[in-house]
Amino acid sequence: MANKLQSIALRGALLAAYPWTVAPLIVSAPMRVMSGPDLAVAVSRAGGLGFIGPGAKPEDTAADLETARKLLAAFEPFTATQASVLPIGIGFQVWNGNLDVAASTVAQYKPAAVWLFAPRNGQADIDNWTKRLRGVSPSSKIWLQIGTLKEALDAVRSATPPDVLVVQGAEAGGHGRAKDAIGFITLLPEIADATKDSGIPLIAAGGIADGRGVVAALGAGAAGVAMGTRFLACNEARIKKGYQDEVVRATDGGANTVRTHLYNHLRGTFGWPEQWSPRTIINRSWLEQQAGMPFEEIKKHHDEAVSKGDAVWGPDGWTATYASASIGLIRSVEAAGTIVENVRKEASEIVQMLHVLFR
Amino acid sequence: MANKLQSIALRGALLAAYPWTVAPLIVSAPMRVMSGPDLAVAVSRAGGLGFIGPGAKPEDTAADLETARKLLAAFEPFTATQASVLPIGIGFQVWNGNLDVAASTVAQYKPAAVWLFAPRNGQADIDNWTKRLRGVSPSSKIWLQIGTLKEALDAVRSATPPDVLVVQGAEAGGHGRAKDAIGFITLLPEIADATKDSGIPLIAAGGIADGRGVVAALGAGAAGVAMGTRFLACNEARIKKGYQDEVVRATDGGANTVRTHLYNHLRGTFGWPEQWSPRTIINRSWLEQQAGMPFEEIKKHHDEAVSKGDAVWGPDGWTATYASASIGLIRSVEAAGTIVENVRKEASEIVQMLHVLFR
Repeated sequence: MANKLQSIALRGALLAAYPWTVAPLIVSAPMRVMSGPDLAVAVSRAGGLGFIGPGAKPEDTAADLETARKLLAAFEPFTATQASVLPIGIGFQVWNGNLDVAASTVAQYKPAAVWLFAPRNGQADIDNWTKRLRGVSPSSKIWLQIGTLKEALDAVRSATPPDVLVVQGAEAGGHGRAKDAIGFITLLPEIADATKDSGIPLIAAGGIADGRGVVAALGAGAAGVAMGTRFLACNEARIKKGYQDEVVRATDGGANTVRTHLYNHLRGTFGWPEQWSPRTIINRSWLEQQAGMPFEEIKKHHDEAVSKGDAVWGPDGWTATYASASIGLIRSVEAAGTIVENVRKEASEIVQMLHVLFR
Repeated sequence: MANKLQSIALRGALLAAYPWTVAPLIVSAPMRVMSGPDLAVAVSRAGGLGFIGPGAKPEDTAADLETARKLLAAFEPFTATQASVLPIGIGFQVWNGNLDVAASTVAQYKPAAVWLFAPRNGQADIDNWTKRLRGVSPSSKIWLQIGTLKEALDAVRSATPPDVLVVQGAEAGGHGRAKDAIGFITLLPEIADATKDSGIPLIAAGGIADGRGVVAALGAGAAGVAMGTRFLACNEARIKKGYQDEVVRATDGGANTVRTHLYNHLRGTFGWPEQWSPRTIINRSWLEQQAGMPFEEIKKHHDEAVSKGDAVWGPDGWTATYASASIGLIRSVEAAGTIVENVRKEASEIVQMLHVLFR
């Protein structure tokens, strides 16, 4: 039984690596474009770890880090505790990332953590990125997002294992496993058992949006949690108002979201390795595809809608609305720091109640 | 925030309804044929609530309850605390159940709980069963298994709401939602919020196999948990040795299980309403279907294999092996009572560790 609890004991070590953080570690995921410097800095300032997502172009990351550095310079505690790294993280989409640009950016800004995901050629690509990035910034921790037991084992057994594994379950909004996805409720404990000798802490991701999700993840064996969709509904997210309104409006994540590549294709994004797909809020594009409408016709509706602006989101729209199955738990737009603090407080209250239950 | 914790406060009320139980409430699910009286009684004796599953024929349930009554008569604590009900539960598959037989069985044996699932016509069928069963045994609590927000709302708003809602997530092995399934990690908190005025406690099901799953479920807002597959690997399960060996052997639930109706059809079971399907461990039948082999050919392989006995399970077999995505967490066959006690102990240890983390 003690073995099963080993992953939980790694929580302390994880927090120590990011000395400004407060238990339990709450992370904002590196959502492409939408997780910018304002969001990342706000999360880190609230005792979490904020990640900047990949930009539209590889060069955008350096500009975002420059902004983050300026924002952080204003806060004494950060400059005091963390001279060697920038107290935020940064994410790279490996399959279409530019390692040269990434390496020079990481060398220059030394983010506390680098979150890698979606390699085209599995762990071989990750090893390549890890070696290069560790070479230019040994103090930047390597986080690797995986969604299967096999990926976790490949990572842990490689010559360059990551510092942290992000275990992403099927309820996630961001790109995750397409066909072999499963919730972290079974995936995370199985990975915890299979990787326990590695000492690598696990972060749970996928479907967490409030304190209940945090306690569920910690109970399952996670050392901390990552939330994506919850931060789409924050003041600091770089997101269109219509998209954000739809995240707040939508409910019933089980019935009203689906994993599909359709919206990538409608947006003109091709090339994603087929093992990953994103989850999206269902709207007319999906329903038209299910009804058998040819892609070109749906694309015409979609493009017309996009040209109209904010009003095109919602069930009567055609626009991509990537989001987690947790949409029904998100009911208001808040400051990112407030989200972190409230989620932590809620998790703490739940743990107090559980403690009484077991007494 | 207090609203979100309301469902958790129902834990006390739930335990009070089954006075022999110990917090947190651990339930063994009513698996068809495999959950018999020995299993149910062992779970209740360990401070849980054991359910007997539907039999091969409607009449089998009365025979199982008679056996359970005899087993329970030997244990003084039960006869003392529970004069009015039999301290176990019983499950009915509504779509092909026989309400007349069910009602006379419940009237005669007065089980503490009756777990209804899989109606062909939604809540209307459930209302019908609920009214009839409450009429014949007012002290038997009605448990309803659902897998979507809509089903939960239909139940809570009906004229005869259930006493307990079992929220079954996508990782479950037993029949659950086919297309609109999602993990309880998002489904349960959303249902908790949407049904909070009802005061109906929620039981989490689907993917729970050890103390980690229990704490995850309680953290998400459940008042207790149901485990099915974990009890396939117990001494008291009515299960073929080959099937049980395969549950213990199999790992990587995300990659090696799938939801499909194929095995029902191979076994000659037709008629399940299409909104439900079971999860099964992948073997040759599934792989042959994926490769495009006609059903009749797979059926021939399957029937030949079944005639050979225990050795037909496993990845090289063709036989139905219904199981949850939690298979990778199940590594040994134990006594059912030991499982209940160990899971409870493990959950308690995790809560103690979380309590320290938040201090």
